[in-house]
Amino acid sequence: MVDVTLLGTGGMMPLPYRWLTSLMIRYNGSSLLIDCGEGTQIAMRERGWSANPIDVICFTHYHADHISGLPGLLLDMANSDRTEPVTIIGPKGLERVVGGLRVIAPELPFEVRLREFSGDGEAFEMFGYRLKSFKVNHSVTCYGYTFEVDRAGKFDKDAAVAANIPLEFWSRLQNGEIINTGDVTYEPSMVMGPDRKGIKITYCTDTRPVPAIEENASGSDLCILEGMYGDAEDAPKALKKKHMTMQEAAKIAASANVQELWLTHFSPSMGKAKRYEAEIKEIFPAALIPKDGETRELNFEED
Amino acid sequence: MVDVTLLGTGGMMPLPYRWLTSLMIRYNGSSLLIDCGEGTQIAMRERGWSANPIDVICFTHYHADHISGLPGLLLDMANSDRTEPVTIIGPKGLERVVGGLRVIAPELPFEVRLREFSGDGEAFEMFGYRLKSFKVNHSVTCYGYTFEVDRAGKFDKDAAVAANIPLEFWSRLQNGEIINTGDVTYEPSMVMGPDRKGIKITYCTDTRPVPAIEENASGSDLCILEGMYGDAEDAPKALKKKHMTMQEAAKIAASANVQELWLTHFSPSMGKAKRYEAEIKEIFPAALIPKDGETRELNFEED
Repeated sequence: MVDVTLLGTGGMMPLPYRWLTSLMIRYNGSSLLIDCGEGTQIAMRERGWSANPIDVICFTHYHADHISGLPGLLLDMANSDRTEPVTIIGPKGLERVVGGLRVIAPELPFEVRLREFSGDGEAFEMFGYRLKSFKVNHSVTCYGYTFEVDRAGKFDKDAAVAANIPLEFWSRLQNGEIINTGDVTYEPSMVMGPDRKGIKITYCTDTRPVPAIEENASGSDLCILEGMYGDAEDAPKALKKKHMTMQEAAKIAASANVQELWLTHFSPSMGKAKRYEAEIKEIFPAALIPKDGETRELNFEED
Repeated sequence: MVDVTLLGTGGMMPLPYRWLTSLMIRYNGSSLLIDCGEGTQIAMRERGWSANPIDVICFTHYHADHISGLPGLLLDMANSDRTEPVTIIGPKGLERVVGGLRVIAPELPFEVRLREFSGDGEAFEMFGYRLKSFKVNHSVTCYGYTFEVDRAGKFDKDAAVAANIPLEFWSRLQNGEIINTGDVTYEPSMVMGPDRKGIKITYCTDTRPVPAIEENASGSDLCILEGMYGDAEDAPKALKKKHMTMQEAAKIAASANVQELWLTHFSPSMGKAKRYEAEIKEIFPAALIPKDGETRELNFEED
């Protein structure tokens, strides 16, 4: 089970009624936080959550509304007596930016491991999931992320029996091991059905529409995209400031054939974002204009 | 008229119901902010205030709960189209700390003037008031501040007439000018009564009780002191972490003969701080345990 919470839905500046956009993904006892602007630690606390289980923090880019909450969060983790290492992932500049901000959080009781990437992005395998960054198009270098949990095929008991595979090897084969007994070699493919559908989440803010979003978001169970503006007259602003409108995001979700779309990163001038929902649903019916704290539990499909 | 607002009353970490301690003093069209932790810009926005009129930001010390909101605030000021210079005042290390944090706010449409002080503190005369820092005793170098508006004596019309001072010089003398006409010299002391009581505010958090607090706070109209703990069993914690209890702060206020005391910088574990008020008032009757946003308008005394 993957538990996804959009801690905030705001862009640019935190408001009294809207935290900055930040996504928490919890899986298998480990938490991943994508983006951490000013106030993200308060949004977490509002939900009664400790920062302690966060093993990975990753950043899309280094505009303040996506990273200014980092020193406070690290200190919060320190206060929660965390001692396990924390991995921080982000585009080129990570070391410089985290180094700068840590001027007010220099001593931590845990190791901070920085994993900086560049180019078109990179894939990271950790804690049973795969996090992959992909380059988008903002006023500064910016990336989107996909989070994926793979799911192996079903174990075919009949095939194992038919192939005379000793019972003691079954679970090892199921775990992907190739077994050489000396006389004979058993491979997982002999007993495992084709890979089954896993769970996929896409998160992408602060960009103009680019093909990479659709390509990477393709088939996501949940796709979270920036919808900074909703009014047609703001389209030139989106173009100039390199953001997406809700309508542009909905079109991407439709082409990428995602199960559900959440819009986020609303302009501070927007007021109630929910009023655009009906219009957006006409472009992509499974669209939602969420409030801060929107949560979804994603499970593997029934066999 | 001086308008004072305690934007938050929390210490250590921002909570969903309590912003971090930060003081806004507004006088004569200019705003002074003392301390700026994570969320201070939201606390301001909650009051409907723009960051634009802030001419001076000063820091007591560089623990994150007192400064982590700085980059967001500077960007907020930039978004409000401020172009006038902003003065940032703080203890030794100011350049290093502000430089580090500005890694996410590198370009601003206004000049940032840093005024770093050391030793026992320094006095700054700006915008019609005097801000003076004084050293206290925390786990890192930390200072308290006094804010003072002086008030000249009353203009003595009868004395001016008696001394045959031409009417055209009266207002210049009243403004403190010495006038040489060639034949005769007129001095302000000829027409001005003794200095009258001005307005004085003291702000001091994150310290053990030290004589400097009482000395500097002496005669304040409003004295804002840390009261991190209220329970007797937390006294050893205050001693160890170099903070003050409410009881210690109230004793200082009593000795310093201040008009009113506000306590602040409550421990995150405290819950409702108000419950200690009755006990604290027994030590110093003019004590208040304020909520976030507590405001006082301070005026010159009636003549």
